[in-house]
Amino acid sequence: MKITGIVTEYNPFHNGHLYHLQETRRLTGADYVVVVMSGNFIQRGGPAFIDKYSRTRMALKAGADLVLELPVRYATSSAENFAKGSVAILNNLGNVSSLCFGSETGALDKLNKVAEFIVSDDKQYHQLIAESVKDGFSYPVARKKALLTCLGQSDDIPLNTMLEQPNNILGIEYLKALKIFNSTIKPFTMKRIANHYHDAELLQDMQETSINSATAIRQEYFKTETLYKLKTSLPGFVYEILSESEGKTYPVHEQDFSQMLYYKLRMLETSQLIEFLDVSEDLARGIKKELVNYQNYTDFAFCLKSKRYTLTRIYRTFMHILLGIKQNQFNPSDSRAFSPYLRVLGLKKSSSAILKEAKSSNFPIITKMADAKKILSKEAYSLLEEDIFASDIYNQVVYSKFNTKLPNEFLQSPVIL
Amino acid sequence: MKITGIVTEYNPFHNGHLYHLQETRRLTGADYVVVVMSGNFIQRGGPAFIDKYSRTRMALKAGADLVLELPVRYATSSAENFAKGSVAILNNLGNVSSLCFGSETGALDKLNKVAEFIVSDDKQYHQLIAESVKDGFSYPVARKKALLTCLGQSDDIPLNTMLEQPNNILGIEYLKALKIFNSTIKPFTMKRIANHYHDAELLQDMQETSINSATAIRQEYFKTETLYKLKTSLPGFVYEILSESEGKTYPVHEQDFSQMLYYKLRMLETSQLIEFLDVSEDLARGIKKELVNYQNYTDFAFCLKSKRYTLTRIYRTFMHILLGIKQNQFNPSDSRAFSPYLRVLGLKKSSSAILKEAKSSNFPIITKMADAKKILSKEAYSLLEEDIFASDIYNQVVYSKFNTKLPNEFLQSPVIL
Repeated sequence: MKITGIVTEYNPFHNGHLYHLQETRRLTGADYVVVVMSGNFIQRGGPAFIDKYSRTRMALKAGADLVLELPVRYATSSAENFAKGSVAILNNLGNVSSLCFGSETGALDKLNKVAEFIVSDDKQYHQLIAESVKDGFSYPVARKKALLTCLGQSDDIPLNTMLEQPNNILGIEYLKALKIFNSTIKPFTMKRIANHYHDAELLQDMQETSINSATAIRQEYFKTETLYKLKTSLPGFVYEILSESEGKTYPVHEQDFSQMLYYKLRMLETSQLIEFLDVSEDLARGIKKELVNYQNYTDFAFCLKSKRYTLTRIYRTFMHILLGIKQNQFNPSDSRAFSPYLRVLGLKKSSSAILKEAKSSNFPIITKMADAKKILSKEAYSLLEEDIFASDIYNQVVYSKFNTKLPNEFLQSPVIL
Repeated sequence: MKITGIVTEYNPFHNGHLYHLQETRRLTGADYVVVVMSGNFIQRGGPAFIDKYSRTRMALKAGADLVLELPVRYATSSAENFAKGSVAILNNLGNVSSLCFGSETGALDKLNKVAEFIVSDDKQYHQLIAESVKDGFSYPVARKKALLTCLGQSDDIPLNTMLEQPNNILGIEYLKALKIFNSTIKPFTMKRIANHYHDAELLQDMQETSINSATAIRQEYFKTETLYKLKTSLPGFVYEILSESEGKTYPVHEQDFSQMLYYKLRMLETSQLIEFLDVSEDLARGIKKELVNYQNYTDFAFCLKSKRYTLTRIYRTFMHILLGIKQNQFNPSDSRAFSPYLRVLGLKKSSSAILKEAKSSNFPIITKMADAKKILSKEAYSLLEEDIFASDIYNQVVYSKFNTKLPNEFLQSPVIL
């Protein structure tokens, strides 16, 4: 069997995702598509618009065969760790032959050239980044400057534009991760169509269907608090799931976590804040200094934003602090150690062969949470516990906001279609 | 000068409080009345209806001369510690000659007889309490049973009724504390009029003025969300302050702390929960076991209620966990060590002589928070820090609920009238 992996957030699932899924199957000739998906918290450092099991259902209805959860530690992390976590999972499944991701450039060779350079561990490159960060630039800006200096600008690889596009950056990280983990998975990329990830405006072309970014879709929803205008951007089955759940389990917004975040920030000292992933000492000091002006999650992130710290970086550190995700010096180049289990969120009955084959590799697969403690090492279980905690916090917000009690991770079974 | 102390919550200030203040002055012949008042959290284990500085303003307008804060550790504690903390403060002021409290019986000698017996440290009494608690009775019930056995029931002291009335119980604790601290302060008690502390129904007698309990007043407000029906229960100046602040700084309700509480309870293990004041091991285990059913602050307290643990006891433990108030083995019989500073919330200009005289005793008086660290021992400052933390949490809830930013403890000066 030929299995292709993709990495997603589906927050929420839209027409662009459907196109990606279908094109992936066509491009790579896959019999099965395995989806690695963020759980209840996402990479820009906030909660998912709708819970992970609803999004799993969307993915399966769209044609995905198996949905695996990207641990919250990686799902809310930098592009590098997000990609490493995802690629590690696909690699550990043991039977995935391709990975297909969207990118603005659509040219694999160009992205690969950058990835190869970074993995080559060039001394000047690291030095240039360190200098820029010291000068107060954010890490993404510092990296771009260093790459431009080391690789130069050419018509062949228009680096300047390329490195400003988030899906290219993420693509480079997937390619790096494949190299670092010595993976045999073959990468594919497809050119993203319609508007960009960062575009927040909904394109209203009044066509039968349109492709809009998840960001635009979420923002439109929060503006109008109605699904009506989103209908042309969403597949019918997604529209149906969202219609059924509206005001019952979603929308969940970062602002819903405002008081918990304040409470945690107020409770801890600077020296304790820096124990969390991505929290630098000067960011921790800034947090404690500005805390007197805290009103809510979003405003406080804006209050801390600077040349050095992008809004997304701040949101992510908030999430790590809130969810108790601490620094982990352990950053192995072995994919099995990096993501030491597979957590199944859902699968198609017709695709159970994927898991059957994978099980023969003796890699831990979690379908029932009650078994996890028995089959995982202490270290691996502590990674899983971060997701259990994150889901409890997320579900509590849903319960208090909508009076809907979502089953916890021990009571919820994988979604099976 | 003749100074009398009283102990209050003023949550909110009502006609009964005004009567108590005026009668105190008359009964004890006081030139000045000093009020020891709970801050932003109160003895039944919830937040105050309206913030402490507004309540201080009410007290001063009503005729109080000086308002001192009861540290949150004591303010949210059992009747015993509530009374000890309050009496310690009055004792430490150095120039207070009387303490006047309301009680259902109105008979000082009867309350004193019980207080004297408890302070005598009777062996059988302690043994009886321990046995009842072991049998699953709550501490208040166990204590009542033990006292009835040891002191017997007589027409002279109708213990059975007396010990069911909360102001009698608190009165006994004031008397105990005066004895324990070897205080020269002379106790007075006055019979409470109108409805009882626990009465939750508003008495609507359509009189010009009426006396209702603070509980009844708060519950009526939460039911109707309007001040109109409370007008006859409140002095005019209180009604004015409440009218000005309505929907700007109050009402604050325990439910507003629901998510913070869940977050803290979910974050900690049983072994960490028992570090907090009043959290027994089986209560901590119960909390962790039932947490899966947590919806909000109030419902979760009901969920944990049992023969052994009264609702108030559970609310208090919630508050101690939320506010980070840990067990403190140190429980000195020296009032200076028990409440090692005086914190001024407000005073009348015409009464500054009280503080001037008190300062001569060299006991730390905090009027400006910025000075506190300099003049207090590390231990004393850590007691004060509990109040700073509690106020920050309270103010954050006000900010997020009403968009009103209350000044923090370093920016707020005492209320001066």
